[in-house]
Amino acid sequence: MGGRRTAAVALLTDFGLSDPYVGIMKGVLLSVNPEARIVDLVHDLPPGDVRQAAFQLRRSLPWFPPRTVFVCVVDPGVGTARGILALETAEGIVLAPDNGLAGFLEDEGRVRRRFRVTKERYFRRPVSPTFHGRDVFAPVAGHLSLGLDPSSLGPKAAPPRRLGSAGRGTVASVDRFGNLVTDIPAETLPAVPEIRVGRRRIRGLTRTYGDVGKGTLIALVGSAGTLEISVSGGDARKLTGAKPGDPVRVKESGP
Amino acid sequence: MGGRRTAAVALLTDFGLSDPYVGIMKGVLLSVNPEARIVDLVHDLPPGDVRQAAFQLRRSLPWFPPRTVFVCVVDPGVGTARGILALETAEGIVLAPDNGLAGFLEDEGRVRRRFRVTKERYFRRPVSPTFHGRDVFAPVAGHLSLGLDPSSLGPKAAPPRRLGSAGRGTVASVDRFGNLVTDIPAETLPAVPEIRVGRRRIRGLTRTYGDVGKGTLIALVGSAGTLEISVSGGDARKLTGAKPGDPVRVKESGP
Amino acid sequence: MGGRRTAAVALLTDFGLSDPYVGIMKGVLLSVNPEARIVDLVHDLPPGDVRQAAFQLRRSLPWFPPRTVFVCVVDPGVGTARGILALETAEGIVLAPDNGLAGFLEDEGRVRRRFRVTKERYFRRPVSPTFHGRDVFAPVAGHLSLGLDPSSLGPKAAPPRRLGSAGRGTVASVDRFGNLVTDIPAETLPAVPEIRVGRRRIRGLTRTYGDVGKGTLIALVGSAGTLEISVSGGDARKLTGAKPGDPVRVKESGP
Repeated sequence: MGGRRTAAVALLTDFGLSDPYVGIMKGVLLSVNPEARIVDLVHDLPPGDVRQAAFQLRRSLPWFPPRTVFVCVVDPGVGTARGILALETAEGIVLAPDNGLAGFLEDEGRVRRRFRVTKERYFRRPVSPTFHGRDVFAPVAGHLSLGLDPSSLGPKAAPPRRLGSAGRGTVASVDRFGNLVTDIPAETLPAVPEIRVGRRRIRGLTRTYGDVGKGTLIALVGSAGTLEISVSGGDARKLTGAKPGDPVRVKESGP
Repeated sequence: MGGRRTAAVALLTDFGLSDPYVGIMKGVLLSVNPEARIVDLVHDLPPGDVRQAAFQLRRSLPWFPPRTVFVCVVDPGVGTARGILALETAEGIVLAPDNGLAGFLEDEGRVRRRFRVTKERYFRRPVSPTFHGRDVFAPVAGHLSLGLDPSSLGPKAAPPRRLGSAGRGTVASVDRFGNLVTDIPAETLPAVPEIRVGRRRIRGLTRTYGDVGKGTLIALVGSAGTLEISVSGGDARKLTGAKPGDPVRVKESGP
Repeated sequence: MGGRRTAAVALLTDFGLSDPYVGIMKGVLLSVNPEARIVDLVHDLPPGDVRQAAFQLRRSLPWFPPRTVFVCVVDPGVGTARGILALETAEGIVLAPDNGLAGFLEDEGRVRRRFRVTKERYFRRPVSPTFHGRDVFAPVAGHLSLGLDPSSLGPKAAPPRRLGSAGRGTVASVDRFGNLVTDIPAETLPAVPEIRVGRRRIRGLTRTYGDVGKGTLIALVGSAGTLEISVSGGDARKLTGAKPGDPVRVKESGP
């Protein structure tokens, strides 16, 4: 650790905020590192939805300070034989169950070192088989935020599991405003795309919501760097009926 | 900056907490000022509802430490030509789009200095046209919390836009308990008011919820310093059917 | 205080997060102690539900650093003659209205010292009769987090009120995943229990959710140390129709 400043800790879970689970994790974190700077990244992920967790982690990673510890607890297999991984990347350290959540980091060649999280000395014991967030993830994150090298957490790990490819071209997430955030990278779009979602068709891209009349269905490059489908001053989910996982088709717009 | 302590940063948005938008803003803030003390003021404002944002900001401003930076992102015109303002008041600095949100500060003569936020050196670039919260508001707030003088952010600004007057005498917001929080200042109430909301009529003021029997519709001076309409142990929204924007009429109670 | 580190402050309220009440409390807290480390324990408790507040506080207390200040504002009697208590325990200091919320601490012999919170010099004045969270709890917690001895807050208090016993053997809370968290301590369970909730019957205990096939109704020892009823990959609330307060019966499983 030397004189190094304590690292930020970002929490991504499907625990929601109506129960004390996230608060308890923070209590454990502060018990290990009273100076931890904890950020709620997102907690209202659909329960057990590893694919959406991966999508939200991926779009959030670039915006945190170097050395941030990303604690990812979307873990329907909690307490079973699935492992827990600590993956070191340029952005920091990702702690996640080995259930596919962090597979995209490997796919994209962003993992520098990987370790299995097995050293019980960094856990709160006895470890509850149903709440590793409290007994494993939180205390381990506390130690990492203090500067513990991830190699202390356990043996070197094999590459993480991948999610079965959903293929690109789907609604990855629908946000609070009803925007359909897709997994289609901006750089793959044709100059003038024609986009189909459900029975709707959109031609061309708009720059931002307020550039068109209220109620207009538009496509734009969203802040995640992917295609987004929106209604200016409205709700694209309601207008299109689309939901996460639905296909979005893009082709070059005809004459 | 000298040895001055870093200022608190209060966030008021309509981003909700089910998406990572607020968490990403915090990541950017901590990237600029790792010691920033960030407070979530409110994030579940109705999407794009500038009037409610103004009401909630106004009632919250007095309760924060001096020099707090208030980051207000209810911004349906994000990415269009609307400006972003930094307004210095006795309470601290208010960062807000120039869409009427901060107009009340000018109406009440509370603005000491005003600047347009234009200096891109304080932004994250490239600036997404749909997420100025991440690329403009958050990094600028980080610099302000470190002690940057707001005059560094851009040229002097004209007075901010005002919201078209809704006139006083409306339900400004309905809280989680179903209390109807009005915009009618306590000091304008007659000694024994008669209050009408929807088809209901209330005579006189009650001091607090528990002073009357459960289920009674009452009027009181709420913690915002304005008239509030409540049901003891119940929900005034359900009983009256009222919603934000509905009229509330007050007169001197007859004999 | 001497050189002692500022204590953590954990907030447990029924204010929800859609209004600025919690944010305003944090503003007041930071005004008193700019270094306060504030943790949201839970804010979405059912309005006025003192029993659930007590249950969630009880299960959360052990997981925070020593000397934590637990600020509990579920307070349907706010502004009436009910007192406010500061109870010192091994875990820290619990601030709560004297409405039964903290009675379990006395039942379990965990209270070392008790004081009534009456010294107005630690309040924000004038005190609103409807928002003691802002004007009493928050500033008092700020002072406690700085090291103020609770004996400074007012005279010694009598033991706190108790909740009328609900008897053990009920659903104490239903979490986001639909798990029925009961108040039945693990150590009181027979070796092979037979459990009845609504019209459903479960035999034996499972270790964790993923140990059985998806959709199976199971019973297990939850992370609160009590009996929990769950559906693997599903929602036990939906399957059983149970809600907080419903009876759960346990007997030794017959041959």
